[in-house]
Amino acid sequence: MALRARVLYDFTSENPGELSVKESEVLTLYSEQDIEGWLEGANGRGERGLFPASYVEILRSDNSCRTSADTFADSRYSNVQSSGFDGTFQQPPVEPFPKSSSGLSTFSVPLTQASDDDWDDDWDDSSTVADEPVGGRYHEGNGPSTYRVSTSTGSRGNAQHAKSSATVSRNLNRFSTFVKSGGEAFVLGEAAGFVKDGDKICVVMGQYGPEWQENPYPFTCAIDDPTKQTKFKGMKSYISYKLTPTHTQNAVNRRYKHFDWLYARLVEKFPVISVPHIPEKQATGRFEEDFISKRRKGLMWWMNHMTSHPVLARCDVFQHFLTCNSADEKAWKQGKRKAEKDDMVGANFFLTISPPAAPLDFQEVESKVDGFKTFSKRMDDSTLQLNATVSEFARKQMSGFKKEYQKVGMSFKFLSQAFEMDQQAYSAGLNHAISFTGDTYEAIGEYFSEQPSRDLDPVMDLLALYQGHLANYPDIIHVQKGALTKVKESQKHVEEGKMDRAQADGISDRCNIISYATLAEIQHFHQIRVRDFKAQMQHYLQQQIAFFQKITGKLEEALQKYDSA
Amino acid sequence: MALRARVLYDFTSENPGELSVKESEVLTLYSEQDIEGWLEGANGRGERGLFPASYVEILRSDNSCRTSADTFADSRYSNVQSSGFDGTFQQPPVEPFPKSSSGLSTFSVPLTQASDDDWDDDWDDSSTVADEPVGGRYHEGNGPSTYRVSTSTGSRGNAQHAKSSATVSRNLNRFSTFVKSGGEAFVLGEAAGFVKDGDKICVVMGQYGPEWQENPYPFTCAIDDPTKQTKFKGMKSYISYKLTPTHTQNAVNRRYKHFDWLYARLVEKFPVISVPHIPEKQATGRFEEDFISKRRKGLMWWMNHMTSHPVLARCDVFQHFLTCNSADEKAWKQGKRKAEKDDMVGANFFLTISPPAAPLDFQEVESKVDGFKTFSKRMDDSTLQLNATVSEFARKQMSGFKKEYQKVGMSFKFLSQAFEMDQQAYSAGLNHAISFTGDTYEAIGEYFSEQPSRDLDPVMDLLALYQGHLANYPDIIHVQKGALTKVKESQKHVEEGKMDRAQADGISDRCNIISYATLAEIQHFHQIRVRDFKAQMQHYLQQQIAFFQKITGKLEEALQKYDSA
Repeated sequence: MALRARVLYDFTSENPGELSVKESEVLTLYSEQDIEGWLEGANGRGERGLFPASYVEILRSDNSCRTSADTFADSRYSNVQSSGFDGTFQQPPVEPFPKSSSGLSTFSVPLTQASDDDWDDDWDDSSTVADEPVGGRYHEGNGPSTYRVSTSTGSRGNAQHAKSSATVSRNLNRFSTFVKSGGEAFVLGEAAGFVKDGDKICVVMGQYGPEWQENPYPFTCAIDDPTKQTKFKGMKSYISYKLTPTHTQNAVNRRYKHFDWLYARLVEKFPVISVPHIPEKQATGRFEEDFISKRRKGLMWWMNHMTSHPVLARCDVFQHFLTCNSADEKAWKQGKRKAEKDDMVGANFFLTISPPAAPLDFQEVESKVDGFKTFSKRMDDSTLQLNATVSEFARKQMSGFKKEYQKVGMSFKFLSQAFEMDQQAYSAGLNHAISFTGDTYEAIGEYFSEQPSRDLDPVMDLLALYQGHLANYPDIIHVQKGALTKVKESQKHVEEGKMDRAQADGISDRCNIISYATLAEIQHFHQIRVRDFKAQMQHYLQQQIAFFQKITGKLEEALQKYDSA
Repeated sequence: MALRARVLYDFTSENPGELSVKESEVLTLYSEQDIEGWLEGANGRGERGLFPASYVEILRSDNSCRTSADTFADSRYSNVQSSGFDGTFQQPPVEPFPKSSSGLSTFSVPLTQASDDDWDDDWDDSSTVADEPVGGRYHEGNGPSTYRVSTSTGSRGNAQHAKSSATVSRNLNRFSTFVKSGGEAFVLGEAAGFVKDGDKICVVMGQYGPEWQENPYPFTCAIDDPTKQTKFKGMKSYISYKLTPTHTQNAVNRRYKHFDWLYARLVEKFPVISVPHIPEKQATGRFEEDFISKRRKGLMWWMNHMTSHPVLARCDVFQHFLTCNSADEKAWKQGKRKAEKDDMVGANFFLTISPPAAPLDFQEVESKVDGFKTFSKRMDDSTLQLNATVSEFARKQMSGFKKEYQKVGMSFKFLSQAFEMDQQAYSAGLNHAISFTGDTYEAIGEYFSEQPSRDLDPVMDLLALYQGHLANYPDIIHVQKGALTKVKESQKHVEEGKMDRAQADGISDRCNIISYATLAEIQHFHQIRVRDFKAQMQHYLQQQIAFFQKITGKLEEALQKYDSA
């Protein structure tokens, strides 16, 4: 039987040799092996060509299928991760939220036809670790890059064993975010661990719904101008940033690799919290002033988001990072080891969450989460557009606008030079004034070219940061939706007498916790978004006002020259 | 013998079929007949092609030559005349001041090798009336379009007769400005007429040299918004301008054709005065608001220059134009006839000039006039460049600048629309503020597109007016230089015993009058130039300041919206 594949997303050929394909279309494959992400095949009309491997699912005789949807989604976020902080955005794939795969789930009768069930795609042997995003969420971490769950039985990743341990079956796709995050294990009651009082994370009911309990000891952290350091007698150079948290007032020195390590720990630990992306890595030009200043700004934005988050700001690994004496190698290593051995990560993180007493109405939760999904898509589109516009506006000011004003300035100066040949003493004042006006317009041209670094660059930094957050949310929503689906499944099983009510109630309770955490995180997102965009818009307008006032002042100075002309 | 031509100016071929030629190069012509201004010929290397007829002089066996230099110069001024007031300038020919022709003058031994002796080129039969500028100085005048000289003998245009009446011979080129203006006839003592006291025009010695005696009764004249009038029961429409001179306070109505008629009278009457050009004619769209407003502005500039000029402001024909009751047909026609029969025009105009007692040092005059020539060339170049820059700057503001600000505005609005989907009550203020900021940037885009009409257009109007003046000066300088050459010739003749001293002194006295008038006119030019450019630069800067303040105000308004956000 010929190897076949079903098309998941429309693809339009853009180059010779490519084949345009339509969603749901079934193609004949020439080989299962992709060539740098492309598969070769033919459609029903016999047209032959290449199409992206990630746009199709390979159909097998046993009805199981392989989808690259997760990879597809993840790779997008790693795109944002890798390009988000340099202000250049790539066009996102047409479908930022992966569509449902049409392959059958492990349940023969799916409870919902919801569009978010791709988390329970079958696990396919042909998936390899290479499918995982590289440099994305799990880049350069010291810990294992797959999920870590402390289950009560101690069994890990054994599908047969897992199936026997719960009536609601486990997802066999070990790359599903729901699985990776530990969300599934937690919902199924497999997470267990001792939660110290200090580790408790409270979700409370606020004015606008569930929210993270405020940090009772709020603080901020300054990042001072980085300095170039050397070690091994100058053989190795690196940039060191001086961090001064307000709650200790003790400065510590950190390198980019420390930020990077911390980021990996946080991503691993918090499944439904949007950890802000750190500025991208850069291999060359690491010691160039422009880059260093850009990265410092990026790290400041990152730090601001870290200290603003009630959960992230207080977590041990972050506190260790902020407060451990940089000279004390031993203490640093101790803290590092402790963080890497932290049990309360992934599935166990949910154990630390203490929700309000009243359980949530899941239907309301679903509606809220769907609303947020729509919102975040729109916000993603509009920030992308704004970024493109603003970036072009900056470029225009630095090139075209500058040039126009300077050309006017030069023409005025040329006129004043002609006037200087008039041999008339009484026109000297005018000639000087016109020459000064020429200088003024040349200066205004310069102002235009300098301005974007003052007002538009910060706007672009903000947009980049939020592009990163928006890229995190599909995973967060995914985990919440996965939990909700397990609840629905368990209720069905109870109705069918396949599961006892206590077990279903446990699933529901744990879904309640995930839902509280998700809603608290969404609430936090809205709050910092309103705060950040308000502050940045104010900053932008203030800078613009100062800019136009500076121009006005310069023009007034020029005008005065004519008083004595 | 083959027909040959000597190259007067370098010409670089820009199209296939054209031939690059160098100044002084001698070419072989295929025909004397030009094809739409181009001649065909070959150079010494046998290369064949087309070159502009005006860039060469045809060499004849009798050593006489024909040059198109006068035509070339004149046609340029008519270019300025025709295009100067609509703000679009054509690139001037490479050499605005015609170079000297290398043909011999009527004198076998030229007294000077000065570069300005082209005014006494031989009269060539092949020159036709068509060589005269069309629509330029002499367009649509009712009087004769060639020179009018009241000579003492009553002989006109008869070269033989003229030659016999004076030892210093007449220029035979009836199209020479020196001849046309009446300058030659005056210098040769052929002008005669009764000058009434009221017609006397005094040149006095001012602080900076000779100047026109100030108008003891200075006045200005307002031009009100024109209205559309009809006559012949609506069969014929025209635009009527209401003029209100400050010295009578009586409003009169005038049409464009009246301005046109007046202009022709003034040009005919005043040989060494730069009569400001009136706005160009326009056949279509005469009743369109934009055009009417543009023409009114042009006429206001014109009027300002007329009333500012001590001689033009006081002359009878202008006063008739300003004061004659528009309803009194009879009085108007009487004044019109009187102006057209005015004897004190051209050569006789110089009779009305009353110079200071001390005669000028002609060498100093020559140096001053040469200095002004250099100055006016530079001013011409720089106003041309400024006009091009400013015109492009206006275009950019109305297109590119506007578009950029509006795109930013739209992107902000798009963001606020996305934010409105957040279902969070506390962000309504922010959403509104961002939306308002979007409107603000769209408004700023509009401001940019509206601004040029407020500040750059008046600058362009000023430049156009001065382009017109600068185009007049070559003729004025030409007349003065012609007179000076006659003086040199007469001195030579005296030395050679061919002329008696009294006759030479008469020529010198009359050249003195022309020189006083020329220097007074140059002085006037500098004074109004300084006044006009000072006022216009101040106006421009004031408008620019107001513009940037308006933007600042709008941005401040937007910023305030965030206070309650």
